[in-house]
Amino acid sequence: MTNKMINLDQTELPKSWFNPLPLFDEPLPPPIDGISKDPIPPEDLAKIFPKRSIEVEVSQERRIDIPEEVSEAYKIWRPTPLIRATNLERELDTPAKIYFKYEGASPPGSHKPNTALPQTYYAKQEGTKTLTTETGAGQWGSALSFTGTQFDVNVKVFMVRVSYDQKPYRKSMIQSWDGEIVPSPSDTTKAGRTFLEQDPDTDGTLGMAISEAVELALESDDTKYSLGSVLNHVLIHQSILGLETKDQLEKAGVKPDVLIGCVGGGSNFGGLILPFLEDVIEGGEDIDVIAVEPTACPTLSKGDERYDYADSGEITPMLNMYTLGHNFVPAGIHAGGLRYHGTAPILTRLKDLGYLKARAYPQTDTFEAAMQFANTEAYIPAPETSHAIKAAIDEALKAKEENEEKTIVFNYSGHGNFDMSAYDAYLSGELEDVYHEA
Amino acid sequence: MTNKMINLDQTELPKSWFNPLPLFDEPLPPPIDGISKDPIPPEDLAKIFPKRSIEVEVSQERRIDIPEEVSEAYKIWRPTPLIRATNLERELDTPAKIYFKYEGASPPGSHKPNTALPQTYYAKQEGTKTLTTETGAGQWGSALSFTGTQFDVNVKVFMVRVSYDQKPYRKSMIQSWDGEIVPSPSDTTKAGRTFLEQDPDTDGTLGMAISEAVELALESDDTKYSLGSVLNHVLIHQSILGLETKDQLEKAGVKPDVLIGCVGGGSNFGGLILPFLEDVIEGGEDIDVIAVEPTACPTLSKGDERYDYADSGEITPMLNMYTLGHNFVPAGIHAGGLRYHGTAPILTRLKDLGYLKARAYPQTDTFEAAMQFANTEAYIPAPETSHAIKAAIDEALKAKEENEEKTIVFNYSGHGNFDMSAYDAYLSGELEDVYHEA
Repeated sequence: MTNKMINLDQTELPKSWFNPLPLFDEPLPPPIDGISKDPIPPEDLAKIFPKRSIEVEVSQERRIDIPEEVSEAYKIWRPTPLIRATNLERELDTPAKIYFKYEGASPPGSHKPNTALPQTYYAKQEGTKTLTTETGAGQWGSALSFTGTQFDVNVKVFMVRVSYDQKPYRKSMIQSWDGEIVPSPSDTTKAGRTFLEQDPDTDGTLGMAISEAVELALESDDTKYSLGSVLNHVLIHQSILGLETKDQLEKAGVKPDVLIGCVGGGSNFGGLILPFLEDVIEGGEDIDVIAVEPTACPTLSKGDERYDYADSGEITPMLNMYTLGHNFVPAGIHAGGLRYHGTAPILTRLKDLGYLKARAYPQTDTFEAAMQFANTEAYIPAPETSHAIKAAIDEALKAKEENEEKTIVFNYSGHGNFDMSAYDAYLSGELEDVYHEA
Repeated sequence: MTNKMINLDQTELPKSWFNPLPLFDEPLPPPIDGISKDPIPPEDLAKIFPKRSIEVEVSQERRIDIPEEVSEAYKIWRPTPLIRATNLERELDTPAKIYFKYEGASPPGSHKPNTALPQTYYAKQEGTKTLTTETGAGQWGSALSFTGTQFDVNVKVFMVRVSYDQKPYRKSMIQSWDGEIVPSPSDTTKAGRTFLEQDPDTDGTLGMAISEAVELALESDDTKYSLGSVLNHVLIHQSILGLETKDQLEKAGVKPDVLIGCVGGGSNFGGLILPFLEDVIEGGEDIDVIAVEPTACPTLSKGDERYDYADSGEITPMLNMYTLGHNFVPAGIHAGGLRYHGTAPILTRLKDLGYLKARAYPQTDTFEAAMQFANTEAYIPAPETSHAIKAAIDEALKAKEENEEKTIVFNYSGHGNFDMSAYDAYLSGELEDVYHEA
């Protein structure tokens, strides 16, 4: 009997997060003000975000201690299993070993609470009563609502109106965790009222929802704003999943040749790869690091590197990113979490240094890969995750062609239980593929 | 750092199932023919069910080896975690320790594949090409579709028409696993056509769907029928979850004082408690074994013990059960899996011997318990599971009152990701409670 699933005991839960910033010779370009173009000092960012999040954002410590209370709450679902995709390997008849990190095990079903938890904890420590955020399909909003219950912080989620109407079950999940949902744009904020004056029947956008959420954080001392991707501290919190993966691979007696994750803003991908950067950058190890995007929103593959707004409303700071432009509206593909115009500054730097390859797939190909996965490994993935699966399958077939016993590791960022209508669309042949040429 | 989650390594996966039949001095009353009232010999049952399932059904071996291929497939998600509900304990301020076995970890999200897997394996071994079954809300149909992919057996699910129309996402899940779904009653079977002639607009019932599924198994040599609860072999397969729980409690250094599960036909409850029966019946250990039902369908609490049909269509054998009558139609509570008129013969015997206490709750109370659980332990349970949670909370509060450090263990039979509309109904105050007096 061999182990297909590699579990860690909770005593083996990582005690610190991994911070890649000290690995870079040059510091990352700082966030700048959209009007003056001046760097924004951390204390100004701390008016919006919890202070400790901003300290982590600019930390030069390679290891950042996980507070005891956060560790205890991580134990609700962590460590998550690392699973070897033996059935898929057999089906592909490949000499490659394929492993996936199963982040679908968390209560909201994705990697998102890895950062929602510490952000909520820091907010509580600093006297914050309410965290605001935006959500599209609801994955991030549900994660933050869950962590709000753990540290007794109110969570107010501005949910894009069209999603609010079309995705009722993520909404129910948020409410089950006592989260407050406001369809956005709403008449409860100045920004929201302005958007509604311009178009009373608007579907809303993530950009509008961000404007509303940030406005509340700026207006009140006991309210802060929380973001689920892009920023350094978010990726650093997510490194817990990569640290566990590293320990689990060691337990299995293998080293990765290929690391794969899907990329929207970059949080699940960053979480997987960060802890391996020491080996790559300092140790000179040869690991292929593959970021997978949708062809409908190929930010890293086709975007330009420049300062751009994080939101379409132009009220956030500007970040140095690969971007398709903050006013770019990607086609309505089912992988809603990958419809983001920019890329995390950390990933931007990694691409510049040549440590990261980007690849884009049309959604039909990713659903086909998801079906092959579901019919071998059984788990039905979120459409975002299916992008990583498609790349893993392609890499395994390449290994077969080249007759190489590669070890391929991808992050299974979330389950598809709330995405069944997307599978219906695929099964009935209704999916459209979109290729964006930047 | 203490362990909240108790994981087993896959090398610790139980190698055999536990069979309680040898523990009983008197054999269980056999299934009988509905017309002649004669006992049905196993070889006749094997015309409908896989032969090996029927051998297990009447086995007198206390331990039944799990075939290597089944063990390998169990490793897709087993062993499942045992989690200590530390946050709930704190909230209740109870001296009790509360543990739950997290069966929501399986790909379809419940304990159901524990028996679907061996049933599918045996069918394949015996040359069966197609397994038929019925499903209401879709939990069992999706489990069998999943296991069909593992052993390359076609699965044909007769889904009650009203559920087919109202629960589109379980249907999508079944289709993602290549299961074929037929809304029942259908014009593809003689039974179905008869039902449709009587009422072309019927919503369908589980009883009608069973008739259709069994008809196909009787008609063709390479088609068999599979049942997800009630029968001995189903409960015996489910014992894997109780065996793991026993090992995990030992690892945690505790012994259970109270075992709790919800009961529809009895499969998840049976799975949890069977392996502890040795200690109770032979070892004389004092464990409270509590079966939790809905007040809308209180089979063990208010039913009569007698021979009754397993289906409302009167085409199955009769079993000795506690029953509310095979024509009883329970109110449409959200815990669809608990709407069954009878109880597994094994549980019937346990109640007669005094080893089992039954308890019934109205659904509003169970949703309230589910919300308290979701806001402490984070996982959002299926409405069926919420019945077990309600009983666990009550037992923990009793332990507080009596100042006793009891160890309470319940089976978390499935997650609520496909039951969000039920939570909506609860949150908007639309739930009705029904009390059935038999």
